[in-house]
Amino acid sequence: MTHTRRWYFNKRPTRSIEDDTFELREQTLPPLAEGELLLRSIYLSMDATNRLWLGDWDLYMDPVLPGEPMKGFTLCEVVASRNSAFAVGSLAAGLAPWSDYSISDGSGLMPVPRIPGLALADAFGVLAVAGPTALVGLMEIGRPQPGATVVVTAAAGAVGMLVGQIAKIHGCKTIGIAGGPDKCAALVERFGYDHAIDYKREDVVARLRALAPDGVDVHFENVGGEMLDAGLTVMKNFGSVVICGLISTYNSTAGDRIPGPYMFRNVIMRRLRVEGFVILDYLDRYPQYQAQLAGWMLEGKLRYRLDVTDGLDNAVGALKMLYTGANNGKVLVQIGSEH
Amino acid sequence: MTHTRRWYFNKRPTRSIEDDTFELREQTLPPLAEGELLLRSIYLSMDATNRLWLGDWDLYMDPVLPGEPMKGFTLCEVVASRNSAFAVGSLAAGLAPWSDYSISDGSGLMPVPRIPGLALADAFGVLAVAGPTALVGLMEIGRPQPGATVVVTAAAGAVGMLVGQIAKIHGCKTIGIAGGPDKCAALVERFGYDHAIDYKREDVVARLRALAPDGVDVHFENVGGEMLDAGLTVMKNFGSVVICGLISTYNSTAGDRIPGPYMFRNVIMRRLRVEGFVILDYLDRYPQYQAQLAGWMLEGKLRYRLDVTDGLDNAVGALKMLYTGANNGKVLVQIGSEH
Repeated sequence: MTHTRRWYFNKRPTRSIEDDTFELREQTLPPLAEGELLLRSIYLSMDATNRLWLGDWDLYMDPVLPGEPMKGFTLCEVVASRNSAFAVGSLAAGLAPWSDYSISDGSGLMPVPRIPGLALADAFGVLAVAGPTALVGLMEIGRPQPGATVVVTAAAGAVGMLVGQIAKIHGCKTIGIAGGPDKCAALVERFGYDHAIDYKREDVVARLRALAPDGVDVHFENVGGEMLDAGLTVMKNFGSVVICGLISTYNSTAGDRIPGPYMFRNVIMRRLRVEGFVILDYLDRYPQYQAQLAGWMLEGKLRYRLDVTDGLDNAVGALKMLYTGANNGKVLVQIGSEH
Repeated sequence: MTHTRRWYFNKRPTRSIEDDTFELREQTLPPLAEGELLLRSIYLSMDATNRLWLGDWDLYMDPVLPGEPMKGFTLCEVVASRNSAFAVGSLAAGLAPWSDYSISDGSGLMPVPRIPGLALADAFGVLAVAGPTALVGLMEIGRPQPGATVVVTAAAGAVGMLVGQIAKIHGCKTIGIAGGPDKCAALVERFGYDHAIDYKREDVVARLRALAPDGVDVHFENVGGEMLDAGLTVMKNFGSVVICGLISTYNSTAGDRIPGPYMFRNVIMRRLRVEGFVILDYLDRYPQYQAQLAGWMLEGKLRYRLDVTDGLDNAVGALKMLYTGANNGKVLVQIGSEH
């Protein structure tokens, strides 16, 4: 009999996540059935897309419904197993409830090897969601040529900090957009962006035009709204616009009329390809992405910054940071010890 | 010394084309210089994109400026030539002034063969702009697989009437959207659409959902605004949205804040590819497209309808029809006799 704390989705928020959006409950898990395993949560990844799961939108996956446990991408240790694919003591990652412990039948769960030379938090923080998202979005959707100019919004965020570095590895010129001088300094000094634009202080279109007078080849969008409009304004003919996230619109409901980009006409004028993607569609190729990313990490070519919140009870506050930009790096919640 | 009438772009319209937007002048052309040819206009193609050329938008080509001759895609006869590439008596097509006669140095001008079995108006009406646009947009941008469901807006327009038929030739299921019962009847009875939706009388989203319960693979957009939102709402995962035209927005100025599609979020939710194109980028492959299209026309596989206005003096009225939907088929102006 295992006791656990578990966050439940209580009530749909109207806009931002509120005090009564989630509820922490204590419960006792039943014994394992044949084929099941008991997981102890170590790290929980907080991702901007989590907010979407709470809405009434028509979604890319089944939403989380009020009354159901909240879930997220989680690194777990297998502490008991009646499933021969997962040995006790091994690590596994996948969508799991926000919970100290959980039971899984193994579906959607990936074994996680320990990588010598990489701390567990770093490996999970980069390899679980943000790294594959950056890699797929840039290289398979954006497809920049060496020498291309790549613009990234929310460039100091979990995905954005990696996109710029992967673009540099591929010989691109990179411009990151972020909010505030600290984040912009980190973009250049820590994450290797050629240029940073502070959208809170600068005229983004004017700066983009000055930094990329011939236009932008690939725009990597994490934000939407004004950022996307600025990007569409300065695209080169036949450029690519990667729609990875539209976080500026996530605190809304399906009934809201949210205008698409005002510069949408440039899809014709500049003959653009605007393409969206969801990293969950690429899970079967995770091993290849993770090997590539881990290789760069071990070679020191991929820098990153984690923002780790301690304790399952603080999970809601950790998630909320994503929508205000209060976080400084990839947001993880440490639920349990690494050992 | 050749006398000609010629339409000049007089004054930018605020919204719709107005009485003082164009001005018809008489003038005398200078003698031909070496390398030049004298062209007699026969048919002038009216295309929705013409309105864009009159605006202050940042455009896919140089705009027409107030004070300059208005131009359009024109079928001409070479009546005098000091250019060995163009023989007297031959036909040529390209961007030319709205004019009885004009002088060209041959750049941007394509020789036009007479095709046995095809009337000159039909060949020009289909092969000059609308046909290549439909073919490139559907097959190279949309890229539907056989069996795919294809939706076309402004489906009774010059491009739309062809897109549906080309999609049927490739084994697709087709749904055309047009305004009014006559156009919708023509879609099914004349242009071979499987289904027609009358956006003036029907709930487009509800009808699309009923006709394509599994969603739409390729959406071919000529209109923008509500039509595009309806299309985005019913797209299948990994579908393609071809942005060929956004005619609903063309009577505006660069300063107008025109919202992009309200269902833009579906670019992520449905992992869509939204791609724009301009047929002028494909001129070097025109011979191949025109051979394909002419073949289908001769085999009776490609039906079309011309709406021919007689006389250069009526050119402005012919153009205006495109923006009210008053035309019934591909709009041409006959400026001179075929012989």
